[in-house]
Amino acid sequence: MTTPDKRTVSGMRPTGPLHLGHYFGVLKNWVEMQHEMEAFFFVADWHALTSDYADPSRIREFVPELVTDWVAAGLDPEKCVMFQQSHIKEHAELHLILSMITPVSWLERNPTYKEQKQEVVNKDLGNYGFLGYPVLMASDILIYHPKWVPVGQDQLPHLELTREIARRFNFLYGDYFPEPEARLTPAAKCPGLDGRKMSKSYGNAIYLRDTMEEIAPKVRGMFTDTNRLRKSDPGNPDVCNLFPYHELMASPEQQAEIRQGCTSASLGCVDCKKIFLENLGAFLGPLHERRAALLANPKGIQDILEAGDARARAEASRIMGGVRDRLNF
Amino acid sequence: MTTPDKRTVSGMRPTGPLHLGHYFGVLKNWVEMQHEMEAFFFVADWHALTSDYADPSRIREFVPELVTDWVAAGLDPEKCVMFQQSHIKEHAELHLILSMITPVSWLERNPTYKEQKQEVVNKDLGNYGFLGYPVLMASDILIYHPKWVPVGQDQLPHLELTREIARRFNFLYGDYFPEPEARLTPAAKCPGLDGRKMSKSYGNAIYLRDTMEEIAPKVRGMFTDTNRLRKSDPGNPDVCNLFPYHELMASPEQQAEIRQGCTSASLGCVDCKKIFLENLGAFLGPLHERRAALLANPKGIQDILEAGDARARAEASRIMGGVRDRLNF
Ligand code: SF4
Ligand code: SF4
Repeated sequence: MTTPDKRTVSGMRPTGPLHLGHYFGVLKNWVEMQHEMEAFFFVADWHALTSDYADPSRIREFVPELVTDWVAAGLDPEKCVMFQQSHIKEHAELHLILSMITPVSWLERNPTYKEQKQEVVNKDLGNYGFLGYPVLMASDILIYHPKWVPVGQDQLPHLELTREIARRFNFLYGDYFPEPEARLTPAAKCPGLDGRKMSKSYGNAIYLRDTMEEIAPKVRGMFTDTNRLRKSDPGNPDVCNLFPYHELMASPEQQAEIRQGCTSASLGCVDCKKIFLENLGAFLGPLHERRAALLANPKGIQDILEAGDARARAEASRIMGGVRDRLNF
Repeated sequence: MTTPDKRTVSGMRPTGPLHLGHYFGVLKNWVEMQHEMEAFFFVADWHALTSDYADPSRIREFVPELVTDWVAAGLDPEKCVMFQQSHIKEHAELHLILSMITPVSWLERNPTYKEQKQEVVNKDLGNYGFLGYPVLMASDILIYHPKWVPVGQDQLPHLELTREIARRFNFLYGDYFPEPEARLTPAAKCPGLDGRKMSKSYGNAIYLRDTMEEIAPKVRGMFTDTNRLRKSDPGNPDVCNLFPYHELMASPEQQAEIRQGCTSASLGCVDCKKIFLENLGAFLGPLHERRAALLANPKGIQDILEAGDARARAEASRIMGGVRDRLNF
C-alpha cells in the first residue's frame, strides 16, 4: 500500500451557509489538519439525501456555496483535496459491498439512529438509507485509508462502527482497511444569538458570509447575562451568552479585562458587544477577503472541485481495485 | 425518452453450472424473449455476495461459466446484451439513491426476506444488504427502463416492490421510471433425480454441460413411479418423477404412447428412460455444439461480456443522468 502515513478524511452536508458554530466546531480543526497531513474533505451530497430526500432541489446550489465557505474559512486547494461525494462512484460501490457484511443489529443499536428517529417528527426517517447511514459513512472514510478522522465526542459511536466494519472486512477477506482513529475536535461553545444552540432553523446564527452591517444588529439583539438588568449591576461572564465568544476570539489579557470590567460593573454590555464586534470584524476580515477573491473568478469553485474530484477519484479507484481483488471480482 | 417500446431486463447469480431446472424455469423464456424485444441479461455478481459474502472466492470463475451456459442454451450475443452487474457502477449509484426513499417497513414485510431468514440457518443473513436485496434488484431493473421483467409466480412480490419504489421515485421527483410489468415464466416441473427439487446442493441435478456419458448413470438411478416395483405392474405417469421430462421434451404423440405403455405395463421404466435419454441427447446436442464453438475461441466469452458491458453502461449512464437531473445533483 502506498497510502501515506498520515491522512484524514471528513465530509459536510451541503445544507446552507455555514455559521460560527460550524467554524469553531469543525472547520477550524480542518484548517489546522490540512497543514499537518494529507487531507480529503468532501461535500456530502448523498448524505444530504438521507434526510432531505423529499426536496433535494437546493442541494445543487448549496454545493458551491459550501466550498466557498470552506475556502473563505481557510481551506487551501493547494493544501487539501476538496471534492463532491456523488462524483466519486466508488463510494456507492463500496457502500454496496459493505452493506453485505454489516449486520442490521449494529445499525439498529446506533444511538444517533435511535435518537433521531424519536426526535425528528416532521420528516419520515424510516428509510432503508437512513438506517444504513453509518455504512455509507464507513465507505466514505475507509475508501481513502485514512489514519485520522476528525470527530466530535458525540460522533464517536459512528466512528466505532466504521472501525467495526473495517475489522469485519479484514476478518473475512484479509487485512486491507486500516482502522481509522478519532482526532477529537476540541469542544467549542458557540451559543446562538438567543442562547440556544446556533442553528439555521432557529434563525439565531451569525454566518461566515454575513457582512459586518448584517452582523451589527444581530449582536445588538444578542442575549448576554439575563440577570443583569442595568449597567450598574455587576454581570457574570460565566452565565453570559456572549462571553464564550470572547473566549474564542479575545486575547487572554483582553478576556481578563472584560471579566474584571463585567463583574465590577465598570463595563456595560453595550460596550462589551462593541469589543466583540471589533474582534469579530478582525476574525471575519480575512474570510471575507478570501471569499471575494474566490468569487471574482467565475470558474474558481468549479476548478477547485474538478481538481479535487480528480485526485479523490484516482485514490478511491486505486483502493477500490484492492477491494475487488480481495473479493475475486 | 428514447427507451424502446419493448425491453426486458433480468439477471442470474453466478453460483455454479446451470441445470435442466434453470433451463426450463428461466432460460428457455429468456431465449424466446431475445427474439421478441431488446433484452438485457446480467450476471448478478453483487447479488451473489448477499448470501455468499463469507466466501466469494468462486464468483470469479462462475462468471464466465454462467455466460457459457447462457450462450450454450441459446442466448445470442447478436440478439441480446449479456453483461456483468458489478461492471456497471450505475447500479450501485441508483441503489444508494433508491435506498434513501425506500421505507424499511416495505423490506421487512417482503415474504422472501422473512422466509429465508427463518429457513437458512447455516449462513448469517442478518446483514443490511440482505434486507435491502429488493432495493438492489429494483435498481438493476429500473436503470434500464424495461417494459417487461420475466419472473416466476413466487417472485411477484419482489417485482411489486420494484414497482412501488418506481412509483415513490416518480411521486417525489416527477415521472421517470416506467413501472415494469411481469412476464410470467410458465411454471415448468423439473424434479431432481431423487424427486426433490433439482438443486446443486442436493446433488440431484442434470447439468446443461453434462456429457451424455455423465448423464446415462444419473438417469439410470433416477426415481420413477416408486409404487411400480416390477415391469409387469402398471405404472402411473402422474406420480412418476421422470414423466414431467417427457412433458417437456417429448412430442405430444410420444407422450401419449408412453402414457399408454406405462399404464398398460407394456413399457418398462428401463425402456422409458432410454426414450428420455434419446430426447435429452437431441435436446442437449445443439447446446453442447454451441458450448464447444464458444470455448474454441479463448477470448469468446470475454468479448461477449465486454461488448455487453459497453452497451449496458451506455444505457445505464444515460438513464442515471436523468436521475441526477431530477435530484438536482
Ligand atoms: S459585560 Fe460582557 S460578559 Fe458581562 S454580561 Fe455583559 S456581555 Fe456578558
Ligand atoms: S414407464 Fe416411464 S412414465 Fe411409467 S413409471 Fe416408468 S419411467 Fe415413469
